[in-house]
Amino acid sequence: MSNNRLWVKQILVSKDHPRFKSLALRNKLVDGYEKGVTSTQGLIAHGRGEAFDYLLGEQTSENALSATNVACAYLLTARYPILSINGNTAALVPEEIAEFCTITDIPIEVNLFHRSEERIKRIADHLRAYGVANVLTGFDVIKLDHIASNRAKVDRQGIFKADVVFAPLEDGDRAHALTQLGKIILTVDLNPLSRTAVTSTVTIVDEVTRAMKNLIGFAKHFEGENDKARLDTLKASFDNFQNLKASYVIMQKRLQSLVQ
Amino acid sequence: MSNNRLWVKQILVSKDHPRFKSLALRNKLVDGYEKGVTSTQGLIAHGRGEAFDYLLGEQTSENALSATNVACAYLLTARYPILSINGNTAALVPEEIAEFCTITDIPIEVNLFHRSEERIKRIADHLRAYGVANVLTGFDVIKLDHIASNRAKVDRQGIFKADVVFAPLEDGDRAHALTQLGKIILTVDLNPLSRTAVTSTVTIVDEVTRAMKNLIGFAKHFEGENDKARLDTLKASFDNFQNLKASYVIMQKRLQSLVQ
Repeated sequence: MSNNRLWVKQILVSKDHPRFKSLALRNKLVDGYEKGVTSTQGLIAHGRGEAFDYLLGEQTSENALSATNVACAYLLTARYPILSINGNTAALVPEEIAEFCTITDIPIEVNLFHRSEERIKRIADHLRAYGVANVLTGFDVIKLDHIASNRAKVDRQGIFKADVVFAPLEDGDRAHALTQLGKIILTVDLNPLSRTAVTSTVTIVDEVTRAMKNLIGFAKHFEGENDKARLDTLKASFDNFQNLKASYVIMQKRLQSLVQ
Repeated sequence: MSNNRLWVKQILVSKDHPRFKSLALRNKLVDGYEKGVTSTQGLIAHGRGEAFDYLLGEQTSENALSATNVACAYLLTARYPILSINGNTAALVPEEIAEFCTITDIPIEVNLFHRSEERIKRIADHLRAYGVANVLTGFDVIKLDHIASNRAKVDRQGIFKADVVFAPLEDGDRAHALTQLGKIILTVDLNPLSRTAVTSTVTIVDEVTRAMKNLIGFAKHFEGENDKARLDTLKASFDNFQNLKASYVIMQKRLQSLVQ
């Protein structure tokens, strides 16, 4: 088959189709669902993200790019950074996770809102198949306070020990519980109004595939960077509230342009 | 169990939870998915709706209430009205459909974007279990022009014959094909920017459960109404473009309020 077309759930979609990228992502997610990597709730959450991305014009904004830069600075200067990966993230960006981890040597913890040992194993296997070497699956768990118990489990050698947690597409309760523990939370969330978005230290309001590609770009750029002061300045100059506001403004302007 | 709480996919969610209603709806849909009533694509589409509802403040606007009123006037004055029901609508509002059909004596046609005889049967059985008496399942089908063939089938005794079609959560291609046939299309769509929203005669920009409850309220209010002139005035006074604009403005203002 020509690489200008793609089978999306039995429908042959041309790369010229205005919704091609969106349909291709959806297809990845539905495949992930069929493999047991993501859940029915994950599919619904993805649809929600799609709508916000539509309002953002389906492109990375300047403020999202800055936030990605800052998130990368946090990860590169952390004492013990970790990537907290759930089903949707694993289904959508396994190659990008593998590449980022290879460059930065940061470990991964599989962490689910709808936790099941079976699904954690599937996600870990899925990530390993894409070349992710260091995957923690919650062997040595501890429960966080202030959160329903089935969502509170984190690995003592992973998220619990980490000072900086990169948790894309995270649940609001858990993002809050982690910040309560004094951790720096970096997230990717297309909804700038979500509890995760407003709770996190740095919120990249962008589609996760675009965000991961940019994160990889920054990590390569900063590779071997010895100027810690420069990375610290990047972190200090960032204001997440102003960053979220910039995304509200983009959505608002897009709606306004449709009214006129 | 106390009726102040609800099991949402193995998570006991308190009615005080800020996302209780949204999680309860999601649960209904996931149950529908597990019964084969809705599809993976239906789950994603629901998520998109959630995002727009979030921007609407998760409540019925004045303009949505007016549009519901007008839709009801169209249904009550139609020569041959019909309800076109898909998987998501059947999963989310079976009780409301049954109640509305009992009051108005309007028949239903099960009509799917991802058409399969098996799923049509499941949806029809699901609706009948909730007390819907008159369900057409496309026994005597005819194909519409200008639309991909697997989505073009409608029942000769149902949608094809109808002058007014109430088609909540409808696909844009089909909404367009039906208006091309000169039919009045009434829809419920949380996305005021969708092709369905802009193509239909009356678009109720509201969550389908809230919309159906209001529709039932109007139908009861108008029951036995002999003043056809009053219903015709309601219809004539409605401008769908102004109605959609009002929804853009609500979303835009909500985003603006967050910036200030």
